[in-house]
Amino acid sequence: MGPMELRGKVWIELGGRHLFGKGRAALLEAVESEGSIQGAARKLGMSYRKAWSMLRAGQTLTGARLVETTRGGSKGGGARVTDFGRELLRTYRRVEARFDDLLKEARNEVRRAGD
Amino acid sequence: MGPMELRGKVWIELGGRHLFGKGRAALLEAVESEGSIQGAARKLGMSYRKAWSMLRAGQTLTGARLVETTRGGSKGGGARVTDFGRELLRTYRRVEARFDDLLKEARNEVRRAGD
Repeated sequence: MGPMELRGKVWIELGGRHLFGKGRAALLEAVESEGSIQGAARKLGMSYRKAWSMLRAGQTLTGARLVETTRGGSKGGGARVTDFGRELLRTYRRVEARFDDLLKEARNEVRRAGD
Repeated sequence: MGPMELRGKVWIELGGRHLFGKGRAALLEAVESEGSIQGAARKLGMSYRKAWSMLRAGQTLTGARLVETTRGGSKGGGARVTDFGRELLRTYRRVEARFDDLLKEARNEVRRAGD
C-alpha cells in the first residue's frame, strides 16, 4: 500500500450557496494582474464566457460586484477588482493559508496510519 | 447580504483516489455500535448494498479490510471494525477535530468580511 495523503479544502458560502473558493480566488488574482477579464481567462486557460459567469454568479449572490469594468483608454476596456472583491480574496487567502499549514502538520500522522 | 459562512472538509486519499472521509467514518462507527453491516446501514438510512460497497471500495484500494464479518452465534452473522479500520478512523477523527477548531476560529473573520 502506498502512502495515504491527507487532502482538504475550504470555501465560503452565502445562503447555502458557493460564493468563493480556489477558482474564484485565482480568477480575481488574474484580473488584478492582467487588467481585464479576457486576459484573466486566457491566463487561466478558461473561456471568457466561463470567467464572466463565475464573476456574475458572485455578484448575483452578494448583490455586490467583485470586478468592475473600465471603458476606453489606450488599451480598450479593462477590468479591476473592487474593494469588496479584494476583501473577499484577502480573507479567503488568509484562512486558506492557515488551513494549508494544518494539512502539512497532519500529513505525517496520516502517512503513518497506513504503515 | 446575509452572513458568509466558512465551510471545509478533509479526507484521506490513496494513490489519488478517495479512501476515507465523513461517510466512511460514520459507517465504521455505526458498524462498531450496531455490530453488523446491516444494522449500521439501517442506522445511517442507507441500503445494505451501499454500505457494503463503501467498505469494499476501501478494502480494494488498501488491500486490507476495514471491517471483518463474524459468522454464527445466537444473533447470526455480525461484523466488527478491524484494527486497521479503527486506526484509520481514529486518525481521521483526530485531524478532523483540529480542522473543525480552525473553521470555528476563522468563521468570525469571514462573517466580518461581508459587512
